[in-house]
Amino acid sequence: MSANVIDVSDPADPRLDDFRDLNSVDRRPDLPTGKGLVIAEGVLVVQRMLASRFAPRALLGTDRRLEELGADLTGVAAPYYRVTADVMADVVGFHLNRGVLASASRVPELSVPHVLETARTIAVLEGVNDHENLGSVFRNAAGLDVDAIVFGSGCADPLYRRAVRVSMGHALLVPYAWASDWPRDLETLRDNGFRLLAMTPDPAARTLASAVSEVADQRLAVLVGAEGPGLSERAMRASDMRVRIPMSRGTDSLNVATAAALAFYERARLSR
Amino acid sequence: MSANVIDVSDPADPRLDDFRDLNSVDRRPDLPTGKGLVIAEGVLVVQRMLASRFAPRALLGTDRRLEELGADLTGVAAPYYRVTADVMADVVGFHLNRGVLASASRVPELSVPHVLETARTIAVLEGVNDHENLGSVFRNAAGLDVDAIVFGSGCADPLYRRAVRVSMGHALLVPYAWASDWPRDLETLRDNGFRLLAMTPDPAARTLASAVSEVADQRLAVLVGAEGPGLSERAMRASDMRVRIPMSRGTDSLNVATAAALAFYERARLSR
Repeated sequence: MSANVIDVSDPADPRLDDFRDLNSVDRRPDLPTGKGLVIAEGVLVVQRMLASRFAPRALLGTDRRLEELGADLTGVAAPYYRVTADVMADVVGFHLNRGVLASASRVPELSVPHVLETARTIAVLEGVNDHENLGSVFRNAAGLDVDAIVFGSGCADPLYRRAVRVSMGHALLVPYAWASDWPRDLETLRDNGFRLLAMTPDPAARTLASAVSEVADQRLAVLVGAEGPGLSERAMRASDMRVRIPMSRGTDSLNVATAAALAFYERARLSR
Repeated sequence: MSANVIDVSDPADPRLDDFRDLNSVDRRPDLPTGKGLVIAEGVLVVQRMLASRFAPRALLGTDRRLEELGADLTGVAAPYYRVTADVMADVVGFHLNRGVLASASRVPELSVPHVLETARTIAVLEGVNDHENLGSVFRNAAGLDVDAIVFGSGCADPLYRRAVRVSMGHALLVPYAWASDWPRDLETLRDNGFRLLAMTPDPAARTLASAVSEVADQRLAVLVGAEGPGLSERAMRASDMRVRIPMSRGTDSLNVATAAALAFYERARLSR
């Protein structure tokens, strides 16, 4: 079965409502308090949505992007509303040169025990409330062999459109779960054999290289906090080791997603 | 001598023109084709400008930020135009909660031989035309012990306001130079004893860890290209080694600034 293509020429057609006013502060369809949809943008991210647990319920795009998606849409039941670039701009509220969008309903969140089950390396985030940083952490996790992400308190929504876009769609693919009792859930990690490394700019902390090598044969959780405040003292105390990236020039810190990437890399560097 | 403070209450005062319409597409003061000013935003970045070769010619800010800057302004001849947050918003065209700005004229660019002189590790960028990525590369270079940056063809302006902001001011501090003959200037690097490592997602390339360890005792230039196209084939051919970051899950690539950070980290990881 090939794609379910429906041509639409009227931007006001209510079948396109999943994609209406994408940038509107209060009507945008990805607000958890509103429609709560998950929106994928562009061919690559739509492909990743198709491979994820978020099954598209509708797609909106140009004929060119339909061709590029090609066989990826075989067997996909959701309609592909084929429109011109102008109709698309009218619907979403701006010119979107990625040319294709997919919408999906949210699905039940995974639990912490579920995402830990087969994981060898995970990231634990606290207070990462910036969608762009959050998306970057997912992208880095996907590329650098991190199996799952656990959210402590104060994190932003990884299914927000901007987070999904910056993650290159990996926010839909890398398993994540929200801690239900923070920071006590860190005990659950330890009970499951994870060693907990807390990232800090504190010059008294151990270097990343020495700490990661010490736990090379064990399960590892890398804890990172928001830029600026960093991890809370409670989260720090619940960890096994405080770990720093050696920094030059008295620089304060790296971007949180970059710091996390260095830890992921240190963990993965010799394994492949 | 303490700061040269001048109270201004009229947003139309021409003495504030360095900071007018900061977001305007065609009138913004940091356009190289216009006033070509360098703009620092926020206390930390203004402090870094004060420590850089870009001497401020004017500052605009609230009384609170003046207090935070305190002794940093001792001996600074440039006027600090003290205004209310409302006047500031009127001048710049939006509410800027960093609360202080400094402007500086551009200074003559440094030459490639000059920035190489005492450098042990440098980054070489080609086609990095995104101001945010460029700013992030500078921030990562500053934190991870990179001594200088050389721009090949197709790079954006590191003194653009957004690049300076994302770099946390390090675009003003980390020495950089524009190649005058690209990619032939790579020969100049080699003549100066640099080993040239070209970053690529090519799975046939050597791993970052093994390549960097091989050149541990030598001067090193890390070459990175733009996300997507990557380095040009000419730049690749002019390099000594092609180097890859081991990636999981068939992910295409990391963000260019993140990839560069991993290379910088690999170079620095055992040195401190």
